[in-house]
Amino acid sequence: MRTLIRHLLAATEPAELIDAAGWVRTRRDSKAFSFLELNDGSCLGNLQVIIDQGTPGAEQLPKMSTGASVSVRGRLVASQGGGQAWEMQAAEVRLLGTAPEDFPLQKKGHTPEFLRSIAHLRPRTNLYGAMFRIRSRMSYAVHRFFQERDFHYIHTPIITASDCEGAGEMFRVTTLDPTSGAKQRFEDDFFEKAAHLTVSGQLEGETFACALGNIYTFGPTFRAENSHTSRHASEFWMIEPEMAFCDLQGDMDLAEAMVKCLVVEALEKQDGDLAIFEKFVDKGLRQRLEFVASHPFERLSYTEAVEILQKSGKAFDYPVEYGLNLQSEHERWLTEEHFKRPVTVYNYPKEIKPFYMRLNDDERTVTAMDLLVPGIGEIVGGSQREERLEVLLANMERHSLSLEDYGWYVDTRKYGSVPHAGFGMGFERLLMFVTGMQNIRDVIPFARTPGNCEF
Amino acid sequence: MRTLIRHLLAATEPAELIDAAGWVRTRRDSKAFSFLELNDGSCLGNLQVIIDQGTPGAEQLPKMSTGASVSVRGRLVASQGGGQAWEMQAAEVRLLGTAPEDFPLQKKGHTPEFLRSIAHLRPRTNLYGAMFRIRSRMSYAVHRFFQERDFHYIHTPIITASDCEGAGEMFRVTTLDPTSGAKQRFEDDFFEKAAHLTVSGQLEGETFACALGNIYTFGPTFRAENSHTSRHASEFWMIEPEMAFCDLQGDMDLAEAMVKCLVVEALEKQDGDLAIFEKFVDKGLRQRLEFVASHPFERLSYTEAVEILQKSGKAFDYPVEYGLNLQSEHERWLTEEHFKRPVTVYNYPKEIKPFYMRLNDDERTVTAMDLLVPGIGEIVGGSQREERLEVLLANMERHSLSLEDYGWYVDTRKYGSVPHAGFGMGFERLLMFVTGMQNIRDVIPFARTPGNCEF
Repeated sequence: MRTLIRHLLAATEPAELIDAAGWVRTRRDSKAFSFLELNDGSCLGNLQVIIDQGTPGAEQLPKMSTGASVSVRGRLVASQGGGQAWEMQAAEVRLLGTAPEDFPLQKKGHTPEFLRSIAHLRPRTNLYGAMFRIRSRMSYAVHRFFQERDFHYIHTPIITASDCEGAGEMFRVTTLDPTSGAKQRFEDDFFEKAAHLTVSGQLEGETFACALGNIYTFGPTFRAENSHTSRHASEFWMIEPEMAFCDLQGDMDLAEAMVKCLVVEALEKQDGDLAIFEKFVDKGLRQRLEFVASHPFERLSYTEAVEILQKSGKAFDYPVEYGLNLQSEHERWLTEEHFKRPVTVYNYPKEIKPFYMRLNDDERTVTAMDLLVPGIGEIVGGSQREERLEVLLANMERHSLSLEDYGWYVDTRKYGSVPHAGFGMGFERLLMFVTGMQNIRDVIPFARTPGNCEF
Repeated sequence: MRTLIRHLLAATEPAELIDAAGWVRTRRDSKAFSFLELNDGSCLGNLQVIIDQGTPGAEQLPKMSTGASVSVRGRLVASQGGGQAWEMQAAEVRLLGTAPEDFPLQKKGHTPEFLRSIAHLRPRTNLYGAMFRIRSRMSYAVHRFFQERDFHYIHTPIITASDCEGAGEMFRVTTLDPTSGAKQRFEDDFFEKAAHLTVSGQLEGETFACALGNIYTFGPTFRAENSHTSRHASEFWMIEPEMAFCDLQGDMDLAEAMVKCLVVEALEKQDGDLAIFEKFVDKGLRQRLEFVASHPFERLSYTEAVEILQKSGKAFDYPVEYGLNLQSEHERWLTEEHFKRPVTVYNYPKEIKPFYMRLNDDERTVTAMDLLVPGIGEIVGGSQREERLEVLLANMERHSLSLEDYGWYVDTRKYGSVPHAGFGMGFERLLMFVTGMQNIRDVIPFARTPGNCEF
């Protein structure tokens, strides 16, 4: 039974007869010895394996080139050289699989674009190996954050006949063949009606919050937008908590607590993997994360934010005016330049927000909130929901949403309606924030974008 | 700030000025007092709230009918009556939302079919509230099981251009309109080629196991089969671990350990919620789970299983013969009648298994394995994967899988190939096993089946 290299490198004492296995990152040969740097994906670090020419299996050394797979048995001893605390003196080495000369990761220094074209191999590099270990641990941290706070995880449906935002481009899900040339009817489709991939689990999540209290979703969501930017993917993972008996204040409190908790988790638990991002991607990464972890977040209303932006004297590309959406440049200026800390902006004009947000007593604004962080801008968007049946129905009429389609959603306001609130966080955006990576395609195992659906 | 009823019912001492909130399950009125049974979804149990006529807010009591939402402030005191340890003496009560007389859950004793038609409200019942709390905790237990064993969680793609099994009916994902009547081309579709919803993340998962070592997926998968049975849904969640440097033995070991761990988790952590399933769904539930948790699993080859079945003298509906698939009735007889414990059957004839399973030295069988449990039959299916390039290529040719489509998969065998193994477990099947529920539509928040895509 092999021991993970992660555990070997964290050993507290030498050990006899250890089994390890992994992929050769590099091999150096001297007269008497060969040195293999072996990586098994359990951590960033490699196990240095020292093989002398008489070691059983050493005759295969020439084939143990970069990318080859190897298993070794040997003694774990304190390392003589620098760079690592422990190394292995091989008693036996075995070539499992060769890597011919056309192995694309022989040489270093590939572009991100090239590595995206070999998304099935890039986790064998240091940077992407670290990326996807961080993705895994951050996913788990999300679950732990909510489960420890008595939130119930709900699998809201992926295929849906509704559209949360009343807008948003959706993918169609069908068993009909659009290339047939025949005139077909959705009545004859698999679900006997038009069906799509979900853009959000919020509405379904609300129905469960209105039964179980505190819930969260964490699942894939989809946008069929023809966007070719570094921030947009057609398939991405979203986290959407929803709390019954909760108002906007409680919602902002939860969002802040979650972001802080996840940043602390990254700093404390993914220390080793973060180092490579700090070295090659974003020199100020750790400083930025520590700053977010240790500073109180600022809160101000949209109205105040607009005033501050207007008085800033800063020449923005997009206009700043009450009633317009804040643009990324405005959000980043607020958090990076002005407040120099994470900022939550709340109470936006109702005209620029969806139908389900709660109308404030001023009747001009709704209880929307956006949490902004340095380097990214908006990382969380949420609101208290409109729980008053009449107000919700009026909103739906204004947005041309039919009772036939949304009657089930209205039922939550008809039967035992409660104040409730929630938010959404794009998981990839969190990962970009935590690693400093600038392109969403580099934080997803196999990214889907317009024209790209490989693997 | 409200305290969850789950915590109130587990109190160790009385408390003053507690806030709680929830939905009225029942109200009883006596001359001097009213008794509300309040449920907030945090647990199966209700908080009994005692309100005298003079309590502020008591004038609204007539509207606090079943389904209404209420918040209360009061003292938590030891209960005088039986049935609960603690109850609340209200100092203040507030009606949040009424539930008109047409609230569908006024009366008890609805059929599962009716409750499926109100899937947005059924989590407000005792049984379905318990169901979805168990679903949440079991999800978390799955993550914990793998994360504690150094497995990395991978989000394999949902939209895919490949088809893991080389068979299996898939949903099309498109932005073309099949009802247009026009002759359209997939070259003009969103991804510039035909795209589908994934039926399994295994192949992509293998590429990550061949980089990070031990990985698992846990995400939605889809089948466009026109099956109208209690076991089939069009959208369901699957768990698929994959281990590098692992053989069939290690694979069977992991599957057994996982099933045992999850059953123990259900018994220990979901005790309260399990009780209602034992009472109303399956009297032998706890006994069955405890049996699985405490007995070693049996292992035997497919060949041995066929022999035992043939000698059983039992009249099965389906024939038992070497080379045929085992049917559910055979699997259940083996685990329920013959061995009376969970059973893993391994080494199946290659003809009835997919292309990626490893050929044994007998050249007749492949390293497939199915884990069978009482009451369900197969709960896990997996295999060691064919890691030899030439054998895999020959299999692919036999299955008409092109290198153009699967070249990326073949690369894992071309560059540093390693023995590896994995399995899949349908999460809903696990939930049916753990709760005794007989219909998959009752363990999914919003089930999708042919002709059904509501909410």
